[in-house]
Amino acid sequence: MGKAHSNAWRNAGAFFDVPAFTQKVLVGRDAAAVAAAAARYGWAESATDWREVIARDDIDIVDICAPGALHAEIAVAALAAGKHVLVEKPLANSLGEANAMVAAAQQARDRGVRSMVGFTYRRVPALALARSLIGGGKLGVIRHVRAAYLQDWLTDDGSPMTWRLRRESAGSGALGDIASHAIDQVQFLLGDSVTEVSGRLHTFVTERPGPHGPEAVTVDDAAWATLSLAGGAVASVEVSRMALGRKNALQIEVFGSKGSLRFDLENPNELYFFDGMDPIKEQGFRRILVTEPEHPYVAAWWPQGHVLGWENSFTHEIRDFLLAVGSGTDPSPSFEDGLAVQRVLAAIEESAAAKSSLIQLAQR
Amino acid sequence: MGKAHSNAWRNAGAFFDVPAFTQKVLVGRDAAAVAAAAARYGWAESATDWREVIARDDIDIVDICAPGALHAEIAVAALAAGKHVLVEKPLANSLGEANAMVAAAQQARDRGVRSMVGFTYRRVPALALARSLIGGGKLGVIRHVRAAYLQDWLTDDGSPMTWRLRRESAGSGALGDIASHAIDQVQFLLGDSVTEVSGRLHTFVTERPGPHGPEAVTVDDAAWATLSLAGGAVASVEVSRMALGRKNALQIEVFGSKGSLRFDLENPNELYFFDGMDPIKEQGFRRILVTEPEHPYVAAWWPQGHVLGWENSFTHEIRDFLLAVGSGTDPSPSFEDGLAVQRVLAAIEESAAAKSSLIQLAQR
Amino acid sequence: MGKAHSNAWRNAGAFFDVPAFTQKVLVGRDAAAVAAAAARYGWAESATDWREVIARDDIDIVDICAPGALHAEIAVAALAAGKHVLVEKPLANSLGEANAMVAAAQQARDRGVRSMVGFTYRRVPALALARSLIGGGKLGVIRHVRAAYLQDWLTDDGSPMTWRLRRESAGSGALGDIASHAIDQVQFLLGDSVTEVSGRLHTFVTERPGPHGPEAVTVDDAAWATLSLAGGAVASVEVSRMALGRKNALQIEVFGSKGSLRFDLENPNELYFFDGMDPIKEQGFRRILVTEPEHPYVAAWWPQGHVLGWENSFTHEIRDFLLAVGSGTDPSPSFEDGLAVQRVLAAIEESAAAKSSLIQLAQR
Amino acid sequence: MGKAHSNAWRNAGAFFDVPAFTQKVLVGRDAAAVAAAAARYGWAESATDWREVIARDDIDIVDICAPGALHAEIAVAALAAGKHVLVEKPLANSLGEANAMVAAAQQARDRGVRSMVGFTYRRVPALALARSLIGGGKLGVIRHVRAAYLQDWLTDDGSPMTWRLRRESAGSGALGDIASHAIDQVQFLLGDSVTEVSGRLHTFVTERPGPHGPEAVTVDDAAWATLSLAGGAVASVEVSRMALGRKNALQIEVFGSKGSLRFDLENPNELYFFDGMDPIKEQGFRRILVTEPEHPYVAAWWPQGHVLGWENSFTHEIRDFLLAVGSGTDPSPSFEDGLAVQRVLAAIEESAAAKSSLIQLAQR
Repeated sequence: MGKAHSNAWRNAGAFFDVPAFTQKVLVGRDAAAVAAAAARYGWAESATDWREVIARDDIDIVDICAPGALHAEIAVAALAAGKHVLVEKPLANSLGEANAMVAAAQQARDRGVRSMVGFTYRRVPALALARSLIGGGKLGVIRHVRAAYLQDWLTDDGSPMTWRLRRESAGSGALGDIASHAIDQVQFLLGDSVTEVSGRLHTFVTERPGPHGPEAVTVDDAAWATLSLAGGAVASVEVSRMALGRKNALQIEVFGSKGSLRFDLENPNELYFFDGMDPIKEQGFRRILVTEPEHPYVAAWWPQGHVLGWENSFTHEIRDFLLAVGSGTDPSPSFEDGLAVQRVLAAIEESAAAKSSLIQLAQR
Repeated sequence: MGKAHSNAWRNAGAFFDVPAFTQKVLVGRDAAAVAAAAARYGWAESATDWREVIARDDIDIVDICAPGALHAEIAVAALAAGKHVLVEKPLANSLGEANAMVAAAQQARDRGVRSMVGFTYRRVPALALARSLIGGGKLGVIRHVRAAYLQDWLTDDGSPMTWRLRRESAGSGALGDIASHAIDQVQFLLGDSVTEVSGRLHTFVTERPGPHGPEAVTVDDAAWATLSLAGGAVASVEVSRMALGRKNALQIEVFGSKGSLRFDLENPNELYFFDGMDPIKEQGFRRILVTEPEHPYVAAWWPQGHVLGWENSFTHEIRDFLLAVGSGTDPSPSFEDGLAVQRVLAAIEESAAAKSSLIQLAQR
Repeated sequence: MGKAHSNAWRNAGAFFDVPAFTQKVLVGRDAAAVAAAAARYGWAESATDWREVIARDDIDIVDICAPGALHAEIAVAALAAGKHVLVEKPLANSLGEANAMVAAAQQARDRGVRSMVGFTYRRVPALALARSLIGGGKLGVIRHVRAAYLQDWLTDDGSPMTWRLRRESAGSGALGDIASHAIDQVQFLLGDSVTEVSGRLHTFVTERPGPHGPEAVTVDDAAWATLSLAGGAVASVEVSRMALGRKNALQIEVFGSKGSLRFDLENPNELYFFDGMDPIKEQGFRRILVTEPEHPYVAAWWPQGHVLGWENSFTHEIRDFLLAVGSGTDPSPSFEDGLAVQRVLAAIEESAAAKSSLIQLAQR
Repeated sequence: MGKAHSNAWRNAGAFFDVPAFTQKVLVGRDAAAVAAAAARYGWAESATDWREVIARDDIDIVDICAPGALHAEIAVAALAAGKHVLVEKPLANSLGEANAMVAAAQQARDRGVRSMVGFTYRRVPALALARSLIGGGKLGVIRHVRAAYLQDWLTDDGSPMTWRLRRESAGSGALGDIASHAIDQVQFLLGDSVTEVSGRLHTFVTERPGPHGPEAVTVDDAAWATLSLAGGAVASVEVSRMALGRKNALQIEVFGSKGSLRFDLENPNELYFFDGMDPIKEQGFRRILVTEPEHPYVAAWWPQGHVLGWENSFTHEIRDFLLAVGSGTDPSPSFEDGLAVQRVLAAIEESAAAKSSLIQLAQR
């Protein structure tokens, strides 16, 4: 993540008209390693104590790519110190921490200090276009959504135990790691919020080789949920890290009364759109190659048909964050948006523990 | 369905070496209409009273395409009269009827009288190949399955009320109509049976125009479920008749420890196979065009690359039924297989009524 | 071909309202074999002498599926005897024979005797829809066309010598066999005719095992051409029987000033349409699943989304032929259309022999 | 191009272990504009006189993105001054200039001065993988290749006249602009060279609006060619800037005796591979998502399934160029490779002028 964020900071100014800034300090735990990384990734200095850096007057922005367990502490401190904060998703590892971060963000906002959580896929041009088509009414009333995030890097049951497979260190498995993206997209694309959840978790490979013998896997390999949205739509969510052959397939389908959309992150430059208003004889899912200057973010890059890669959406994220900071407005998604996703994740876990029974979410 | 089955009876002998038979009597309610249909579809006679036809000595086989509410009565009578019976899916409209049919089939079997339920998609060559690859171990241990059946013919909320949208006449909505196919495929492909279910039903358009004003829709427009299989796999099922742009999309994905498969009934001649045993650099989902003589059923038809249509799987069904009858063996899927699907459907309804709580299925 | 045509005759009346007819006589060389085939494929009688059959008063229609070398003799005799004639493509093996057939068809036409050549792919619903979209102006001015027909059944250089690989028996290789379809489609879809040709032929495997040792392959394995059309468009044609992995890929792309189309016979129920009149942000190739009742020929078959197979276009061909005969109009494509294709094939051979130099076609 | 190359220079060191270097001087014609661009794209200085810059001792490398007409003059001077030279494709605007550049490169090479031409698509990981599969024999003997480069930005016949549409300023149209890429790929992928050519050029829109009324378009809108390769393969090439709906579709298909490949630059992270050695029942084109660490260049970037964009292949180009310079070896493609492409382009023009007659290429 540090590599991806550094890349975005290094390049945002070459493509977008953003307020001037300098890549000041990269912070990490190992002094030698972080110094090398700073040199490689374009940072002027490196440091090992984030508190010292936050205390500096010449620092205006803090971009937090540290492990989730540190998010709350750093973000709350940085906001208190008057620094604008961008924090990677998930907002925090627990609902309690997330609530504390939202409270800090709200106080900071009153003082003109900005905060943002990094659900970067909102800045994939095809998904930004999807949001724009839905928001513009091209799909009519949304009935249902299918959201899946399928990966396969845990397929081999002989691959070793890691911290990501222990509940105490990782919080959850596929659920927190990738379902969070799917759930944020559902709420982002529909401009709506989840009110009710039924969930299920499953661990297919319950034991993996550790250094001293087999160890128990204590997080989920896959998760399923259905979500009710306030506006009446129903979304299904399915995530797995054992979907052999699917490498990074965040797949979203949105079905409305007038039109439908389809997206797959393995082909991030394409959006499929079915326009139910076309003449019946000519209806069909269109593959929109989202590389026209008219498409979101695209004009800054290359000529039509010249596709973007995974990292470019981070550049868009930095651009939008900088523009908001520069213009004194609140960037999006907010910490509240990050909290909303975590409430849904928590409700899925709660439902799974209660034999998949529907769980109502408290209103925001 | 009568048209599709007639087509299969009319053509099975031209492509496959099956026992000789004659298309004797087409039975229907309206004498004039059924006489015209008989002439058009190749039946020697027509009739309006199925009891009389079943009583005839020159009738050996009864193929039941009547509405589901009549399946049990006709099938039980026909089996009692010593006729081999093929009945369209779903086996019956209620579990009680389905149990009675299974009992009748078991008794008849002892007397050499055969019975079969028409889950015709088992005979799509690509799905028969899928079963063969899974059965042969090419996928390793199956972890999870994604099964969806998406149609869109109810998208328009102004389309009128019909008997299919009333619980008393249709039993259920998308659930019984199309989820039944998806569930049968899960059990067929994995050679396994469902043990536990969580389900959810939803009606998006709750009222539709009737002749005398709006009427309440009392069946589901869409359904979601997760299924546990005895062998340890988990399957998700999602069906809708409001998935705008999806016309007849029975989509199945099977993820195993060594390989994966993908199928979509809108492209029924293709099976996608990911072989995890290929060298990593060369791995990818292969589009197998299932039109080689080596593929199931295909040698009887056309040269490679010349695709089959939707109706051909019925021809395969008649072929397999005739071969079983001719050789004195039991065709598959049996009435028991049909009952197994209905138990799952009933459990989904039960779970949906109980806030999606997991429901255990009694053992077969 | 006899199997495919018989299938169409056997089923046309079950799906379409066509004039009544009877499947009378199947003619072949081997009495026993043809009798068996007649029984299997639904013909009342069989015979071995086509002249005797043509002389019968109870025969009104002659459908010629014999090898190309016999087309002219049978067709001319049948037309002279006042029989309506349907002849499989290619019209004949030589330009001379084709010219004679056209002359016979013209004379017969004056006496109300109908004739048709079987370029069956004109009746694939997706291609009929393509013609309709082009004819209706949806593509604007057509600039260029890419037509390819790719198969792979000759890939293995160890597969044995056959009559199809000798010039004296087969006339040509991929050129006459499959380029003929591609060329007919170009002229059909554009409603235009070829005026100029540059061509190239190549034999990759020049020797194959015969019963007594290696034999020379004397026809082309692949062919390439560019065609000028009278209306200003340019078409490329590329055909091969060594395109490993392509099984029956008649691929056509048509690019116009307002829209474009794409088709592949391996997915015959799909037509891809790019509408340049859509808003730029929403433009993209649409996959039209050509299975709606509004699409050509489709209403007679199954509900939407239930796809057709390769054989169904022959049923459409028989339907259109019978309707034309019944209504006293000329069916299409005519023998003249068949001749037009052969003139292009001959010009490609002539160009190939002249180092690919452009050859002008005499006007029709 | 300057933007794409600058991006690559700015980022190469962050992802790859390359010799240290500094982004020194950006040269352009307009002092203010080039100063602004230098600041934006990460160059320390800017200048307007390339001769002065070449004369500086602190400059080791010259990367030429100037218009084609200037390539020869700058490259020859830079090589003479002992600078390593990278020049964008096409090598030059005329065969004479290209020959001069090759001569200069050969002399420089003897003094340890390196040169390279920027056919960047050789560094798309999927195409590098394709080359590796072909080179490793996975396709067997290559029979034929289909190469197309389709764009649509000239579709509108009302779009205005530009220097790109005049022969004197642009040299040629689609031929030099995009066929050059297709031809380089054919020679690169097969490791072979073209010996014979038949070509055709066409201008569909012969007049376009200029500031003072209609002006004649004097370059081709589309081009077609067939190429013979020394090793026995035949390649077709088809390019157009009026293929409505195709945005940047460099499409390549390679058919061999054992396997086949397919690629489309609009989905640059995918390579389709048909392995004829798979069991027949399981054969099919595989979509290899070329994002595994085992794939060329990929390990330096992101985790599997996280795709690259169009610009990344330039980063690969800079990396390979720097590694060659650093290790004292010759980078590839060489100026000789660039000349080879231009000889083919010239032969296509010659053939087109001679009614498409086959033209023999002199041996390299």
